[in-house]
Amino acid sequence: MHPVHVGVIGLGNVGSGTLDLLSENAAQIQEKLGFPLQVTALCSRTVQSKSLPFPNARRTADWREVVSAKDVDVVAELVGGTTVAAEIVNAAIEAGKSVVTANKELMALQGPDLWEKAIARGVNLAMEASVAGGIPIHNVLREGIAGDRIAALYGILNGTSNYILTEMEKHGADFADVLTEAQRLGYAEADPSADIDGFDARSKLAIVAALAFGEKITPADIYTEGIRRISPFDFHYAHKLAHTIRLICVARLTEDGLLLSVRPALIPQSTILASVQGAYNAIWVQGRYGADTFYYGRGAGPHPTGVAVVSDLMRVARELRGGSPERVSPFAHARLGIYKPISITRQRRAWYLRFRVSDRPGIIAALAQVLADKKVSLDAVLQLPGGDKDNLPFVITLEPTAEEDVREAVAKMSALDFLREPPLALPMETSL
Amino acid sequence: MHPVHVGVIGLGNVGSGTLDLLSENAAQIQEKLGFPLQVTALCSRTVQSKSLPFPNARRTADWREVVSAKDVDVVAELVGGTTVAAEIVNAAIEAGKSVVTANKELMALQGPDLWEKAIARGVNLAMEASVAGGIPIHNVLREGIAGDRIAALYGILNGTSNYILTEMEKHGADFADVLTEAQRLGYAEADPSADIDGFDARSKLAIVAALAFGEKITPADIYTEGIRRISPFDFHYAHKLAHTIRLICVARLTEDGLLLSVRPALIPQSTILASVQGAYNAIWVQGRYGADTFYYGRGAGPHPTGVAVVSDLMRVARELRGGSPERVSPFAHARLGIYKPISITRQRRAWYLRFRVSDRPGIIAALAQVLADKKVSLDAVLQLPGGDKDNLPFVITLEPTAEEDVREAVAKMSALDFLREPPLALPMETSL
Repeated sequence: MHPVHVGVIGLGNVGSGTLDLLSENAAQIQEKLGFPLQVTALCSRTVQSKSLPFPNARRTADWREVVSAKDVDVVAELVGGTTVAAEIVNAAIEAGKSVVTANKELMALQGPDLWEKAIARGVNLAMEASVAGGIPIHNVLREGIAGDRIAALYGILNGTSNYILTEMEKHGADFADVLTEAQRLGYAEADPSADIDGFDARSKLAIVAALAFGEKITPADIYTEGIRRISPFDFHYAHKLAHTIRLICVARLTEDGLLLSVRPALIPQSTILASVQGAYNAIWVQGRYGADTFYYGRGAGPHPTGVAVVSDLMRVARELRGGSPERVSPFAHARLGIYKPISITRQRRAWYLRFRVSDRPGIIAALAQVLADKKVSLDAVLQLPGGDKDNLPFVITLEPTAEEDVREAVAKMSALDFLREPPLALPMETSL
Repeated sequence: MHPVHVGVIGLGNVGSGTLDLLSENAAQIQEKLGFPLQVTALCSRTVQSKSLPFPNARRTADWREVVSAKDVDVVAELVGGTTVAAEIVNAAIEAGKSVVTANKELMALQGPDLWEKAIARGVNLAMEASVAGGIPIHNVLREGIAGDRIAALYGILNGTSNYILTEMEKHGADFADVLTEAQRLGYAEADPSADIDGFDARSKLAIVAALAFGEKITPADIYTEGIRRISPFDFHYAHKLAHTIRLICVARLTEDGLLLSVRPALIPQSTILASVQGAYNAIWVQGRYGADTFYYGRGAGPHPTGVAVVSDLMRVARELRGGSPERVSPFAHARLGIYKPISITRQRRAWYLRFRVSDRPGIIAALAQVLADKKVSLDAVLQLPGGDKDNLPFVITLEPTAEEDVREAVAKMSALDFLREPPLALPMETSL
């Protein structure tokens, strides 16, 4: 029952959550594995001043000491960011250590390369904690439903924006007010851009889509749009259409290739994805054989993310103990050339166009004319009663239309003088 | 790239679904594993007359030939039942083969013993397909969230009874009519008892609870009650209380031990579990650290179950190739003595009592007196307008009360002459 030795680098939120689990669950972990996990090294800039479990572990502010230590078998990289973290992961792999990381940005940008290095060096690289904290989606895609072929994947992968949208929906509140409140409560950062402009979700989608489709996918492959323009009346209109609005990450296989996007979209209220409230994350997977499966849980937090880190440590330790399995990069298992990312512009689907106008006669006629010129079929015109005549919201929905045609129509409409702002165009994900 | 060799015994629904995946996904499976899975033996009574993929595989009606074949590394036992299946699994383990099984009854009854044999013989035993077909719940509990400690688990694990309940709910239809329709459509068996009386769900809960809590749990440990007494007006009253009714499998850790039950219960309509419609399965897990996670998918079907079998075959093959990992029985990882099954009778919670009476003055007074005698606090009395005076349904809800007190009150009430049938008592799972 020799232990497997763990070095933890980075003792912020995720690091301390991980240490809580490793110390409080040590007995269970040993029972499950058949041998203990022993923490032999702890590293952070302020490690000397922290109150930490594992009194016998070496404490150092120099990560190089952990990476090169003889009594460390697995390194947990929990510092975040992409500069020092990249150095740590590279150095650990070179030193022949397996690595567990919670770093979504690093894995989204450099995951395929790091995996190739790990395979060449014969070590393991695990990254469950990098996406959707408490949901074991990596494990599900790499092992649980590995026998299936994924057709599509829809995710709510940013807790902050889901919190903001569902608060707006519940209370009819404005985006700016909910954001301020979220910042006050610590749910949103002082600079909220990564969350509300979709960049955080984009990194996560890059990783999950790579796992699902076995292709190298980089964040730049993914069309990304944030939630700043969503307003409470968009929820009113969406509800009228039996839909709601969420920031949806999509990776869907089409005949032409892989369609990737992060954007606010209308989804049917009857779908289980629509029931995801607050700071939760969720992933809906459509498999060619297993059909629909759905996974839901906390997207972040020291303990949910700590569960992912510790579960990865257990798996890596089990493999270390078992010998040397064949390693295959999760980013490149499908070299069959059918999963290439494609442009979203030819994708045909239903659309929600929302306008804010200074009311006067002839508005619908003018807008309908633009659509007719582009040979786009209008499905419905919706206008809720009441409202300010100088700033009147209403909605036109479109029959399935290619995105490029919608964009051209929206550009043309934007020049019309009665519009208070450019039309907001949201896809309707009716295929969910 | 030597292949790992697979022998498949049992070519019914699950067996043919498994072969579809193994043949149609062969290229992907090889890319993911780094080596191919090769089917070398196929066994069923009618194997000679079937049209099957893998023309080079040996075909036999004698499972002993597969189990003893030199060119079989892993045996997939897909025959079902507990007699021949037990012989096959035992013989395969004795012959040093790893086993993948889809057999819930066998694993619920003999899983712990079979696992001990497998460990002693140094082989693997995988059973993802035995519970909740397309949902990789075994993988999640054993690996994905292995670092967590489970506090409670709530499941909808029988698709047939969930189909019947949600059809009753949607259409206000009677149990008997929906059952007949389900039988006509092939969703329910000619003898529906295993599904509607909770026995199928009980086997599954025994397995999942064992995985979650690491204890040997047998079906006999689980209080089980079916859905035959649920009627459309129970859904009306449940909705009035902002709840719905589902056949819920519960495994919850209390201070006294592990509480296990399969029974129809009221659950809040706002919970994600309440949104599970039709023949789907779902599992809600509450972890001490990871908090809530939720898993949802098809409960059965050749292809969803085939995904589970093939994913297990891949995992077992990967481990075979990697050497000999430490094996720990998933049924006995927590020998800490805190997870013993306990009787449900002392459990306090809110209750829904539904009566059908021949209306006359003094009924509420008589029922309230029985409750008062038992020192049980009544929470609300609900009676929807209209209804047949000779067969009038109404509902009393109770403040949290121990089950034994509810049972005694119900027994006493059953003797009252105005009741058309004994009261129906359903727990309210408000802690969800």
